[in-house]
Amino acid sequence: MTPLDHILQSRRDTRHFTNDMVPDFVIEKALQAGHWAPSVGLTDATRYFIIKNADVKKAIKKLFLDYHAKAQDCTDTPEQKAAYKALKLEAIEEAPLGLVIAYDRSVLNNFSIGTVGSNEAVKFSAVCAAQNIWLSLTEQGYGMGWVSILNYDLFKKTIGLPAHIEPLGYFCIGKPATNYDNQPMLQQLRWKQKSV
Amino acid sequence: MTPLDHILQSRRDTRHFTNDMVPDFVIEKALQAGHWAPSVGLTDATRYFIIKNADVKKAIKKLFLDYHAKAQDCTDTPEQKAAYKALKLEAIEEAPLGLVIAYDRSVLNNFSIGTVGSNEAVKFSAVCAAQNIWLSLTEQGYGMGWVSILNYDLFKKTIGLPAHIEPLGYFCIGKPATNYDNQPMLQQLRWKQKSV
Repeated sequence: MTPLDHILQSRRDTRHFTNDMVPDFVIEKALQAGHWAPSVGLTDATRYFIIKNADVKKAIKKLFLDYHAKAQDCTDTPEQKAAYKALKLEAIEEAPLGLVIAYDRSVLNNFSIGTVGSNEAVKFSAVCAAQNIWLSLTEQGYGMGWVSILNYDLFKKTIGLPAHIEPLGYFCIGKPATNYDNQPMLQQLRWKQKSV
Repeated sequence: MTPLDHILQSRRDTRHFTNDMVPDFVIEKALQAGHWAPSVGLTDATRYFIIKNADVKKAIKKLFLDYHAKAQDCTDTPEQKAAYKALKLEAIEEAPLGLVIAYDRSVLNNFSIGTVGSNEAVKFSAVCAAQNIWLSLTEQGYGMGWVSILNYDLFKKTIGLPAHIEPLGYFCIGKPATNYDNQPMLQQLRWKQKSV
């Protein structure tokens, strides 16, 4: 197994963190990894916002709870609903660092290579950056969790993003408190088995 | 610089390949890397299709050319149009291997964790897989180029994808013939300078 394989395989969607702070050099190195991601037409449209303020985290946590309640009603069976409600799916308030990874739609106001067939390419570049950041944090002994159970419109308003900046989600960052027995948490908890 | 940093930084959007074949174990290792990518709600919805047939490649190349002509007319100035027309933006017929990375929309027919706030999460998992594949190929001395200048509807019909399978694009894979002086090709050709 190569060093990359090891990082790819041990990267987890983390929802359990220790109280350890995230040093600036760790997040800076991770953001550099994000900047090395592909950028369609060299648009460099990916944007990052660090969130440390407890009140802002609390407001985002409330958005999560509201949508999480909505999601419960989308389950298919009562058994699934009960199992879903028992899952911990975020660590917005506990994770020392919050990160918003977003993209700037306004680059499409001018011609950009690779965006005519699909204007999603700008968004996909930001997702590639998110994955690079995830891998860099994993290599450095840190973890990340992607929270997408949010009303994105209210999320944008809560953190004051202008109309042309679109967030991929809220990312919780910190030292993992567990590696879920080296498997996805949802598999450890028998929600679902990952295919082989 | 760590081994990961080196891979992240040397990964290129490649459009120039040698004639070297891609051994099966290389693409298998890369697809394993894709399978290690995050999968929202453990949906495992990412799908892969290998394309080697010259006639199929030729048909996809034609789709590229049609949309490329359309893209030329979206440029902002005559100078930009001339510069754009001179760029090589794909290697569909030359690259020994074609890969279609796609996602299966039908997983959303049942409840899936993390997809209520944004049903794009399934798509984003496939993009993370694409980035993992890119990094694995880079580590193995191979390269990839993401072609998104296509009419996606006709692309799906050309390769016979059913309605519920959505492709991210066509990916050209092979041995890179150049590393563009270790920078994005578009920067080497002075189309745009990547921000620092």
